[in-house]
Amino acid sequence: MTEGEGLAARRRAQGEEVASAVDAARLLSLVDEVSSQGALPDKGVERLALTESDLAARRLLVDLARSLGATPFRDAAGNFFFRWRGQADLKPVVIGSHLDTQPQAGPLDGALGVCSGIETMRALTTTGIQTRRPIEVAIWTNEEGCRFAPGTMGSAAFADPGLLESFKASRDEHGVSFGEALGALDSSFQDVPLRELCRPLSAFLEVHVEGGSVLDVNAGQLGVVDRVQGARWFQARIIGQSAHPGTTQLSRKHDALMAAVEVASRLYELLREGDEHLRLTVGRMRVEPGSINVIPGKVELSIDLRHPDSAVLDSVEALISAMAGPVVGCDVTLERTMLAEPIEFDNRIVDLLERNSQRLGLPCRTLASGSFHDAVRLARLCPTGMIFVPSIGGLSHNPEEWTPPRDMAAATRLLALTAVELADQDGN
Amino acid sequence: MTEGEGLAARRRAQGEEVASAVDAARLLSLVDEVSSQGALPDKGVERLALTESDLAARRLLVDLARSLGATPFRDAAGNFFFRWRGQADLKPVVIGSHLDTQPQAGPLDGALGVCSGIETMRALTTTGIQTRRPIEVAIWTNEEGCRFAPGTMGSAAFADPGLLESFKASRDEHGVSFGEALGALDSSFQDVPLRELCRPLSAFLEVHVEGGSVLDVNAGQLGVVDRVQGARWFQARIIGQSAHPGTTQLSRKHDALMAAVEVASRLYELLREGDEHLRLTVGRMRVEPGSINVIPGKVELSIDLRHPDSAVLDSVEALISAMAGPVVGCDVTLERTMLAEPIEFDNRIVDLLERNSQRLGLPCRTLASGSFHDAVRLARLCPTGMIFVPSIGGLSHNPEEWTPPRDMAAATRLLALTAVELADQDGN
Repeated sequence: MTEGEGLAARRRAQGEEVASAVDAARLLSLVDEVSSQGALPDKGVERLALTESDLAARRLLVDLARSLGATPFRDAAGNFFFRWRGQADLKPVVIGSHLDTQPQAGPLDGALGVCSGIETMRALTTTGIQTRRPIEVAIWTNEEGCRFAPGTMGSAAFADPGLLESFKASRDEHGVSFGEALGALDSSFQDVPLRELCRPLSAFLEVHVEGGSVLDVNAGQLGVVDRVQGARWFQARIIGQSAHPGTTQLSRKHDALMAAVEVASRLYELLREGDEHLRLTVGRMRVEPGSINVIPGKVELSIDLRHPDSAVLDSVEALISAMAGPVVGCDVTLERTMLAEPIEFDNRIVDLLERNSQRLGLPCRTLASGSFHDAVRLARLCPTGMIFVPSIGGLSHNPEEWTPPRDMAAATRLLALTAVELADQDGN
Repeated sequence: MTEGEGLAARRRAQGEEVASAVDAARLLSLVDEVSSQGALPDKGVERLALTESDLAARRLLVDLARSLGATPFRDAAGNFFFRWRGQADLKPVVIGSHLDTQPQAGPLDGALGVCSGIETMRALTTTGIQTRRPIEVAIWTNEEGCRFAPGTMGSAAFADPGLLESFKASRDEHGVSFGEALGALDSSFQDVPLRELCRPLSAFLEVHVEGGSVLDVNAGQLGVVDRVQGARWFQARIIGQSAHPGTTQLSRKHDALMAAVEVASRLYELLREGDEHLRLTVGRMRVEPGSINVIPGKVELSIDLRHPDSAVLDSVEALISAMAGPVVGCDVTLERTMLAEPIEFDNRIVDLLERNSQRLGLPCRTLASGSFHDAVRLARLCPTGMIFVPSIGGLSHNPEEWTPPRDMAAATRLLALTAVELADQDGN
């Protein structure tokens, strides 16, 4: 065995040692603890970006990271990082996800990826292993985009700081801007030092629930994500004329909801045309004045469009845009509010994750992601990979969202092994 | 001339004297003053039932009525009455309408009828005329039914006090019950004594905006309402399953908004089938969780159905009820939340209003009402009539709702003449 071979073998053994130190019960208990921040009375979690429960969950993890000996810091986009020092001050390997959720959501979307990162750090603590590079656990701000649109604001601004100013102007439905909400976070976390956006990273890895039904949950199958489909959001604004429903004949009606139903029907027609990869959802419909006995004068609706192929996205966008104009006596305007192009993850990371799942004896399948993630933004910046855990019933963005704890631990072992190996790699 | 003929002539002259004393500028100024309670920043009025602005408008009118020498009182349903004493303590003639509005509404729907009543009382004050019977101006509670469903709660409970208990349980979208809101009114108006519901009335007259396009606004045409079409409200509840929009294939979607759009489309189909008297409106659609990137798991929508013919209402209701059950993978349930049968007003009142408009030289047309009104509830109890003023552009439940002040004054003269005549009639 040459000296180089010996080093490589030691590094491999080091990764396996950390992976073995991953503790399933400890991980599950952390997931539970994070879920208690924003827990809904009955079941599920609602922890919208930069609300009190989001800040409380961050505080919990800042304290925990410090107690483990990691150094917390943050950036101007509200992203948090817990740094586990390396042998040298090289570009770090970053692992993590987001803490914010949809309304009436489950406990895992986002939080599991952060908790897997923390558990990896705990396994490093247990083994006393120090990798060549630092390993950081990241919490990205506002991945969901439901309080402040668009989504993945934190990771997008990290990768492209020029975006931050426009993000800051985005307002929630109570009129609070993202910039103002960041100000509140800033006040609460004066003890956590700031670092710059867009620092060079060596690699980024994210564990996440699949939120779909491709992985075989009964077989405990993990997913290695090799690409992510593109997503585009649109906002349609429909102006009619509110009027009395008892006196206004059909021919004189300018019923904005009637027009909205027509627009939605045309969208659903596109969905039924048979492209099995096409996803089209109207998730939000706001009706004004929204009274039983008033013909609606105004409706706003959201459109979420997804497909793995940019060309298809372009052609469906053209069809959606063509819906603007007069519809049953009302005026429809459309605006695109988010664009996330389909991406492919770095082959080397995909290969490494596949090899490592075999080494750990974990059933695994390579798949495309239907949902977008912070990893999509980081992929611009450094070699990036994602590990999916299966979702029971394919559910996500739902209080019933869950994954067998065995699979959460398995994904964390794969994360730990791969992160340690990447952190031990040569180079600057 | 016999003694009886002399009395009849004096009474007619008395009515004309009061009608002549109606002051258009004073009426308009009162309409403006009432509009300032709940005025929207830009244009229009929002004075939902039993909100602060509703109570403030009532306080304004209680003070005004007292200053005119009238006696205010109220009942257990929150209805207010301002009593102008008659020569004898006989059953009163009641004139009035409601003060509550829809969200983002106009200044006249309801308020004009109350202001016409107050102006009639002012004209009585000016002339010093005292009629045989008392004349009372009424403010009926929660006619609109948008904060607490159903509508016409105050007048319905006045006519049928047994309804009040179930009305009290109705809750607004913040969870406040109608009973609790009545409690707040009770506390604010301890100075206004209570009287019983369902007191015997001699007659009821209501001035109201048409809110439709039958009357010729350019000709200053008033309307004498001889019948009111029936109205029925339904609430549809659609349960699907919230899920991730990027990962969930069409075949696995249980998209509650997709089902709601299907239900609404079928309703609109009924409307397009050609019965020009049929009115069908979906005024409210609440989508949960209502996020851009979550497939909706639950939708509630309201249906407002109207027609002059009960048999048609029955058959359309049967078609609506048949929409319950599975729809595109979701479960639809339907409940009827309001029933107002078509009614015909007392011939004697209709005839008297027609004759009196001729006497005053006012262009007038007899018509059916497309909207329901407090008068529909009072018609169970006593001879009842309605006077419509034309609506510019047919608009109502809209900030742009307006009527030329000349027509408001003309309707008030017709009201005053007719009320005084009815109050001078013989009998008990």
